[in-house]
Amino acid sequence: MLTQDSRATLDRISDLNRLKLELNELPAIDVGDYISDLAPEQRAITFRLLNKTQATDVFEYLPPDVRESLIGSLHNIQVCQIVESMRPDDRAELFDELPAGIVKRLVQQLSPEERQATATILGYAEGTAGRVMTTEYVRLREGLTVGEALSKIRLADRDKETIYYAYVTDNNRKLKQVVSLRQLLFSIPDARIEDIGSDRVIKARTEMQQEEVAQLMKRYDLLAVPVVDREDRLVGIITVDDVVDILEQEATEDIQKLGGGGGDESSLSLPIDKLRNRLPWLLGIMALYIGASSAIAPFQTTIAAVPVLAVIMPLFSNTGGTVGIQALTVTIRSLGVGEVSSKDTMKILRKELIAGVGTALALGLTMLLLSLIWTKPEERWVGFVAGFVMASNSIVAVTLGTLLPMGLKRLNLDPALVSGPLVTTLLDTIGFITFLTLITFSLNVLKLGV
Amino acid sequence: MLTQDSRATLDRISDLNRLKLELNELPAIDVGDYISDLAPEQRAITFRLLNKTQATDVFEYLPPDVRESLIGSLHNIQVCQIVESMRPDDRAELFDELPAGIVKRLVQQLSPEERQATATILGYAEGTAGRVMTTEYVRLREGLTVGEALSKIRLADRDKETIYYAYVTDNNRKLKQVVSLRQLLFSIPDARIEDIGSDRVIKARTEMQQEEVAQLMKRYDLLAVPVVDREDRLVGIITVDDVVDILEQEATEDIQKLGGGGGDESSLSLPIDKLRNRLPWLLGIMALYIGASSAIAPFQTTIAAVPVLAVIMPLFSNTGGTVGIQALTVTIRSLGVGEVSSKDTMKILRKELIAGVGTALALGLTMLLLSLIWTKPEERWVGFVAGFVMASNSIVAVTLGTLLPMGLKRLNLDPALVSGPLVTTLLDTIGFITFLTLITFSLNVLKLGV
Repeated sequence: MLTQDSRATLDRISDLNRLKLELNELPAIDVGDYISDLAPEQRAITFRLLNKTQATDVFEYLPPDVRESLIGSLHNIQVCQIVESMRPDDRAELFDELPAGIVKRLVQQLSPEERQATATILGYAEGTAGRVMTTEYVRLREGLTVGEALSKIRLADRDKETIYYAYVTDNNRKLKQVVSLRQLLFSIPDARIEDIGSDRVIKARTEMQQEEVAQLMKRYDLLAVPVVDREDRLVGIITVDDVVDILEQEATEDIQKLGGGGGDESSLSLPIDKLRNRLPWLLGIMALYIGASSAIAPFQTTIAAVPVLAVIMPLFSNTGGTVGIQALTVTIRSLGVGEVSSKDTMKILRKELIAGVGTALALGLTMLLLSLIWTKPEERWVGFVAGFVMASNSIVAVTLGTLLPMGLKRLNLDPALVSGPLVTTLLDTIGFITFLTLITFSLNVLKLGV
Repeated sequence: MLTQDSRATLDRISDLNRLKLELNELPAIDVGDYISDLAPEQRAITFRLLNKTQATDVFEYLPPDVRESLIGSLHNIQVCQIVESMRPDDRAELFDELPAGIVKRLVQQLSPEERQATATILGYAEGTAGRVMTTEYVRLREGLTVGEALSKIRLADRDKETIYYAYVTDNNRKLKQVVSLRQLLFSIPDARIEDIGSDRVIKARTEMQQEEVAQLMKRYDLLAVPVVDREDRLVGIITVDDVVDILEQEATEDIQKLGGGGGDESSLSLPIDKLRNRLPWLLGIMALYIGASSAIAPFQTTIAAVPVLAVIMPLFSNTGGTVGIQALTVTIRSLGVGEVSSKDTMKILRKELIAGVGTALALGLTMLLLSLIWTKPEERWVGFVAGFVMASNSIVAVTLGTLLPMGLKRLNLDPALVSGPLVTTLLDTIGFITFLTLITFSLNVLKLGV
């Protein structure tokens, strides 16, 4: 792809002037990757070859550690230029990741308007519409004609994140209408915008969760959505490229939490961050097992009497766990993409239980057959107990896998908090105790196998 | 949100004329949801209230079963109108899901151009750029001025999926340049488009996988990407709303495969489809265990001699499995979002192994401590074996969790084919056999615990 082309081009260039030309022509993200891969001492030299616009764009694509080291080695005036011309939302993100001392210095050197725009965005909680929005959009007053609106858009700052929608507000900045550039272009210049714009504006509130905004924009195939405050005043917009990032980030979080992790890890994360993300879950599972083991421990005599249990139990545990995980992943994902909500709980549980009965029959029967192969003639009865518990545990598994995330959703918590390992540990414990109790009962009371 | 508003509005209306007005004004997706929720006999009556444009849009948002029943109950002429005015890519999708007999009848009634456009798209393999592209885009000949280009865009069909990019081709339809509406609006009308358009066109080939196209558009924040054939001729475009859908679909597939499922299930899927998706994985796990159990079976005398093993082994199995799943989910997701590629295998494995050693030490030590609590004085040595195997199995777990998906990727297969249950089953088997072999060796050769 183009990235490789860009890389190959850059690697071939030995002449500094030609490199400068190329660096200012290539897509900013490719240049960002190229600079990140350079040795630290070469980065600042290369970065200085960029013109002002390209420097700002490239800077936005650099990873946090490269940004910080660049800020340290560039001239103060160049840093200020870049920070001043960044979009307010990207600037807020940068300030989030830089040490407080540097941020303080940079903020002091910003122009009053830009300082205000950044402060506004940083005032909203992380993960809300207010925090991801940009304050650079095209705003039109009520009463303009199409021709006037088009000239206003032409005169607008080239830096506006999108010019493909314009927002019509009244004197109090209250959002009245949205009009697309497409509608403006296809209308006669004398038409009034209130006649062509739409009054049914799909909008987000500043405190709305970013994933809700993303789902909304996905549903209505919007390129941008306006963000309003409690008084319905327009304060920013969120564009579709943010939506793509938000949806990916949310999916990554769901996947990693299901696997038992923090949610923001990558293959390239530092080993120490990997440990920090994963170890708490692992030690948590072990802690849960302390409880479970004290319940299993009394059954040691049963296991000594029927050692084939040690062959059957692992199968039992892994299969039952998987039944639970299957229901859990489907439920969490359907909630995640906004396909279902917590009010659908009973409808979904019914479907899961019907499928669960089928699963229970199939697995119970297979378990019975396998146990009959593994057990000695005098232990055959164990197979029937194993088959029964496998079946009943499958029903418990789909019920937990469905109800736990739905319950969290109803409580307005993140459904992905029920991670996979939690469900499998819970199912193991329930299954083992049921199984061993039934076996012990059969041994001691029914006097089977004696 | 707006959906609820729309629903509430529609539910309140009793008067047919007002309902008709509302249905033609609301967003098509909301009307689609409303019609899907109606009783089957009411759907066609309600659908006939829609004007032609709205009917086409709403039809695209209906679920497959509702579409099919509507086609059966609407007049033939109305069905033809809708199918004729659908976008070629949406029409191809519809034909994919309808019974062959109906498709044949519908195709015969299409205009020659529309029939050709659909046939072109259906000629590409599922999941490729050719299959998801639309053939409705704005094409400009070389040599136009900005003013001419803008008039051409104004005169273009309103149905073009996007007018925010125009593509410049030569006489052989070869793609030369891309120019954005933004660039055109910000340039003087007399400028020539070759002077403002970009020659470095980021484009996709028809046979490119849809997820690669999505990653490309995400990387460069594009609203649309042109699709070219082998001769570099422009044949279609893919727009950003498709990217959002593709990325979500790919994430769903990854999540469900990790959980042990088919990849296209939803909470609302029919129970029979759920069974079809999940049962093969469950029975597959059981089949794998037939092999594992024959390896474990000979150890029954060991387990009878040291029954505390039955308390230790489940902990061992669930924790080791989780270590593997954690590495697996992070690797699959990082590959999925295009953050790493198979050439990074060694770099990633090194990071995972460093973290893995930390995990191994922490888990091995915890296992030792817990075993010391659970074992009787004469069995204390079991704790040391358990701790050692827990540690070594953690290293095996991160190695498998990293290398298996990377290996599949290198072979150009889907990394998510290594599902979670497969990895846990494999780890269980390896861990149990190592553990039981060491315990048996200690019992019989070292004469411990006798």
